[in-house]
Amino acid sequence: MLKNLVIPAALLCATSAYADEGQWQPYQLPQLKSELKRIGITIPAEKLADLSKHPMSAMVALPGCSASFVSDAGLVVTNHHCAYGAIQRNSTPEHNYIANGFLAKTRADELPGGPNTLVYVTDKVENVTSRVLKNITPAMSGRQRSEAVERNIKALIAECESDKFYRCSVPAFHRGLEYYRIRQMMIRDVRLVYAPANSLGDFGGDIDNYEWPRHVGDYSFLRAYVGKDGRPAEPSPDNVPYHSKDFLVVSAEGLKNGDPVLLAGYPGRTSRYKLPSEIRYARDAAYPAKAGEIQADLDVIAAATKDSEAGVVRYASVVKSLNNVLKKTRGLMDGFARKDIAAIKDVQDAEFRAWYGKQANADKKLLTELDALIAADIALSDEEFGHSVATTSDLLKSGATLYRLALESAKPDAERESGYQQRDLAFIKARLNRLEQSYVGSVDQARFSAALQRYAKLPKSMHMNGLDELLPTADAVPALYAQSQLGDTAIRLSWLGKDAAAIAASDDAFLKLAVKLDGVSQALKERRRELDGNLERVIPQYMAAVIAWKKSQGKPVYPDANSTLRVTYGTVAPYSPKDGITKGPFTTIEGIVEKNTGKAPFDAPQNLLDAIKAKRYGQFKDPVLGTVPVDFLTSADTTGGNSGSAVMNKNGELIGLNFDSTYESITKDWYFDRDITRAIHLDIRYMLWVMSEVDHADNVLKELTIKYPHK
Amino acid sequence: MLKNLVIPAALLCATSAYADEGQWQPYQLPQLKSELKRIGITIPAEKLADLSKHPMSAMVALPGCSASFVSDAGLVVTNHHCAYGAIQRNSTPEHNYIANGFLAKTRADELPGGPNTLVYVTDKVENVTSRVLKNITPAMSGRQRSEAVERNIKALIAECESDKFYRCSVPAFHRGLEYYRIRQMMIRDVRLVYAPANSLGDFGGDIDNYEWPRHVGDYSFLRAYVGKDGRPAEPSPDNVPYHSKDFLVVSAEGLKNGDPVLLAGYPGRTSRYKLPSEIRYARDAAYPAKAGEIQADLDVIAAATKDSEAGVVRYASVVKSLNNVLKKTRGLMDGFARKDIAAIKDVQDAEFRAWYGKQANADKKLLTELDALIAADIALSDEEFGHSVATTSDLLKSGATLYRLALESAKPDAERESGYQQRDLAFIKARLNRLEQSYVGSVDQARFSAALQRYAKLPKSMHMNGLDELLPTADAVPALYAQSQLGDTAIRLSWLGKDAAAIAASDDAFLKLAVKLDGVSQALKERRRELDGNLERVIPQYMAAVIAWKKSQGKPVYPDANSTLRVTYGTVAPYSPKDGITKGPFTTIEGIVEKNTGKAPFDAPQNLLDAIKAKRYGQFKDPVLGTVPVDFLTSADTTGGNSGSAVMNKNGELIGLNFDSTYESITKDWYFDRDITRAIHLDIRYMLWVMSEVDHADNVLKELTIKYPHK
Repeated sequence: MLKNLVIPAALLCATSAYADEGQWQPYQLPQLKSELKRIGITIPAEKLADLSKHPMSAMVALPGCSASFVSDAGLVVTNHHCAYGAIQRNSTPEHNYIANGFLAKTRADELPGGPNTLVYVTDKVENVTSRVLKNITPAMSGRQRSEAVERNIKALIAECESDKFYRCSVPAFHRGLEYYRIRQMMIRDVRLVYAPANSLGDFGGDIDNYEWPRHVGDYSFLRAYVGKDGRPAEPSPDNVPYHSKDFLVVSAEGLKNGDPVLLAGYPGRTSRYKLPSEIRYARDAAYPAKAGEIQADLDVIAAATKDSEAGVVRYASVVKSLNNVLKKTRGLMDGFARKDIAAIKDVQDAEFRAWYGKQANADKKLLTELDALIAADIALSDEEFGHSVATTSDLLKSGATLYRLALESAKPDAERESGYQQRDLAFIKARLNRLEQSYVGSVDQARFSAALQRYAKLPKSMHMNGLDELLPTADAVPALYAQSQLGDTAIRLSWLGKDAAAIAASDDAFLKLAVKLDGVSQALKERRRELDGNLERVIPQYMAAVIAWKKSQGKPVYPDANSTLRVTYGTVAPYSPKDGITKGPFTTIEGIVEKNTGKAPFDAPQNLLDAIKAKRYGQFKDPVLGTVPVDFLTSADTTGGNSGSAVMNKNGELIGLNFDSTYESITKDWYFDRDITRAIHLDIRYMLWVMSEVDHADNVLKELTIKYPHK
Repeated sequence: MLKNLVIPAALLCATSAYADEGQWQPYQLPQLKSELKRIGITIPAEKLADLSKHPMSAMVALPGCSASFVSDAGLVVTNHHCAYGAIQRNSTPEHNYIANGFLAKTRADELPGGPNTLVYVTDKVENVTSRVLKNITPAMSGRQRSEAVERNIKALIAECESDKFYRCSVPAFHRGLEYYRIRQMMIRDVRLVYAPANSLGDFGGDIDNYEWPRHVGDYSFLRAYVGKDGRPAEPSPDNVPYHSKDFLVVSAEGLKNGDPVLLAGYPGRTSRYKLPSEIRYARDAAYPAKAGEIQADLDVIAAATKDSEAGVVRYASVVKSLNNVLKKTRGLMDGFARKDIAAIKDVQDAEFRAWYGKQANADKKLLTELDALIAADIALSDEEFGHSVATTSDLLKSGATLYRLALESAKPDAERESGYQQRDLAFIKARLNRLEQSYVGSVDQARFSAALQRYAKLPKSMHMNGLDELLPTADAVPALYAQSQLGDTAIRLSWLGKDAAAIAASDDAFLKLAVKLDGVSQALKERRRELDGNLERVIPQYMAAVIAWKKSQGKPVYPDANSTLRVTYGTVAPYSPKDGITKGPFTTIEGIVEKNTGKAPFDAPQNLLDAIKAKRYGQFKDPVLGTVPVDFLTSADTTGGNSGSAVMNKNGELIGLNFDSTYESITKDWYFDRDITRAIHLDIRYMLWVMSEVDHADNVLKELTIKYPHK
């Protein structure tokens, strides 16, 4: 079995199955029985592994977020920032639900969440590896392999989505060692039930993002609606609440330092199994380049909007998102500077090689091949980065999407490139439509022009063949904007459905540019496909060896996060960011008063401040803290996408909502450092306390099943 | 007994004798027996109260600092910053003991500490209240009373100092309720034995001043020398080490969170018994004015020295000291902003009044009188502040000292103003001499000129009658400096011993100005004397009542700090400066590496970094921390003057040296807040570890009696 296996060095650290590391596929949990028992989890591992059983059956996904059912009538609790789109969509100057919060006193008052507010219920996970790899032969080129895999995956998805109530996906696990088909019921009628005021639900705002101490009440409630037949339906007043037979009991019993937690959700992406060379590339080249690029782009946006309040508003979410990525990137750079993760992985590599060298059928050729592929991957990543800088224009991106869609639409659906199939149309349209909310012609022009100038200065390795001669000069950019109407939403959308010839014949400057650039962009994609195909062939062989190695030590291996349902566990725990300082594990409502300046984002609502001042702790006073907790830290292994994840106590009862992790934890996407990696959760007692003493959300409280502490 | 007593509201908080609050006179310790036992101190309180017995007999004072004997041959351990003058004095470009540290391998190598390096051994404390208050009658005016008290004190001092080896003082306790005569043997031949490199002994420098986490090795060793007869003598090669029969055993056994500590030393000044109105004056007027004034003065010095490296060096210690006071003043302002101490004291006042109202013979008239006196004190303080701003000139101060000294010298010694007696001459001369180290004419001129401009803008309440018309205008200042030779040290000193008429006849501009201003300065002093005399009459009556009240509750009362020997106790304890963050109680040597930037003041010596990197922990590894501790926090009640104080374990063994307190603790001079008040100590294990693994101070280590942990 080991014959064809070579083991990537980098994945060893993540396989040490130690303490709180691991974003586990539910089916793996029985392998962790003794660990779960050791930290004090009482739900049987077998039950946790069963998606059809409580509590996993209560876990749901939202686009980019996680959530859970908390009543049998489709009531969903998630983060405030995960429901923000739904709140924003319903806000008007007269009814400013962002500023004031929103509470539907009856179901009739619940507000439509809009097309981007969806609830996904994972109901089936099948190992489809053999079907994905059917007809794959070692002789195939990378591209052939990749195309064959994609074909098989598309067929698997199409088969699954023949029932139109489902959205299916076939993500790779262990970088392609396994494939699972995930079936999710997609509920499209989701309504806003209750959200606290932004100054409570986003207290601290971007300033506190990734920071501790934290004092944010990052929660809100949605409700899933379905047709009268109980199946997903288009939004309609005739729909009825989804019958969520399994839902989480909410525990107000609280927890204390050292208590175990379980956390279930949809972590987005991690890179725990990368080679040391990949880490060094990220640390020394990719991240610094990315941070520099984002900072420069932010500077351009700031300069271009400085005299226009409307411009500032229009780009607020773009700036927020860029800042978020920038902070994360800098956090990664700081983390790499703090700890030599590559060196740690080097050591683990050596340990693994020692083991592997002793195996009878070890095939060391594959390691050479892998190294070459990784080097190629790094080189290609440089070119892709250059390409992305050179195409920093929303109009160019829109043009490129329209032209590519036209070309793909000419093919039978199954042969189209992923992302341009029939099933993707609604998303493409929504994206093209939504652009108007975050676009100003003069700003996009400034960004594109500046990006072209920066691109010109990037090292040669970042300039792909054939691109530069097709690009406009920075000086020519104003003319392009003058000669394009893609900034007009109606005109932009009118090109949807037009064929490629029509687009190619257009006079619109950005459609023309998109047509001109399509060839090189596709060439880049082809090279990526070829490379990925080869990586997908080689890496799984390593993974198999690693898993075998770990198995020989009795340790299970979890796959990198890929936006599928995972379970992690840990304990309530403080950490030391610096010698002599300890952070966490809890904050308290008195800390809100301490931070409150009256100026956003530290402008807590007066009724909240009044309740704190009056010490109206109700039933939510923690016996150790002597007051109501707000947020807390655990050692659970989370990442982006885990926002809104249910944090459960040893009995599977909801005691918190995940919403962030600390700045020092950012490198956990590469390496889980038990000493400093901490996830930040909302303490559910704070939510209940606000609902009870501040917002008087009595009807929602009544719908929950709350377990109060024994007197 | 209560007839003549009225109780000041403000002193109640400090009387609650709770936990770690209290800078106790040694004789009071038996009253705290149960408290000491509760926290785990095993030395009998009676023994602690006896200055002639170990461990108190090992405690000594340095000018402005505390220290202790650690061998029977006069070896003294104190802070690096307390021995800084001695180190600096011996440093040359060739032998830079500041930068490189100093270690005398033999006694012959020990270096003279200079005239400002003194060791005081307190050997007698007598309650002399009745003698101080002899012939004091209620009918006396404040000034008469004050002068009578001063006369009595002078006589008590003269009597005590008839033995010329002693320096005596008669400070007031409880704001004048009691007076004690303190007799200290003054050892004038003190030599430098060992000091670590400045980058270790002052690691973090001013940036870390008042901060936590802290990583400074703030220790050094001196040795007291006496004549062959065993009595203090002028410095001479013939002197021999002082035989310090009692000295502290050094314990390397360490301590852990929650362990009790005892601390003995010479705290300078506290204001724990002030009225709420005095706190409000400090908070709202005095501190903001002081901070503004210092900041402005610092700005002037910076501007006046910006092109002169020599000027920067000359004013370095002035700037350092002003910055230190500024940081402390801002800390006080921040602390007052954080916690409404005046309001807390208001509440305590109410509680006290309730009790006092129930007492049979309460005399409420006195409270009215006290309030009036405090109001007058506040008004006078404003004028004194104005006067001090208007006289911000080193040359003017020198002139004023010379003229006043001449006037006082004409009187019999016993009638002279305190500070101008025969016994003060050497100090005056040293001060006038030392000025040259921190004086540049153009800078002093700029400071005086700017100060006069600021003075002109101060509110009217800060302008005393008669001063303004005597002051030069800012424009006239350059001419004054051109017409004065007091900046020349030889000329300045040549005026010592001249009579008042000679000075009055001088053409020197600053002597002339000093003569002109002497009258108003004396008037201000007279008014202060009158007021203090009245305060000294009234306040002790309150104190007596408070002590009676507390006694009725079984609680002893400690007096405000007054630079006399005190004992405090507490426990090793972290604190929370902010909700969700905990600081301390320990730092570790790894934190030095973390902070080290290679740039002063974070430029730890390479041999230190090497030892840390090699994990050469030796016998000094803490079992909980897993490494060598550096500094730690306790709840002991300290203040300025406690620098170098011995921190002892429950058995009276040396386990640390006090050197600072945290920024949040600064308001403790007014109010001891158990939650956040923390003193910062050097862990003696760090000192021993550096001596053993880094500096190889084997001879000094050998001289110590060290108790190592059991294996």
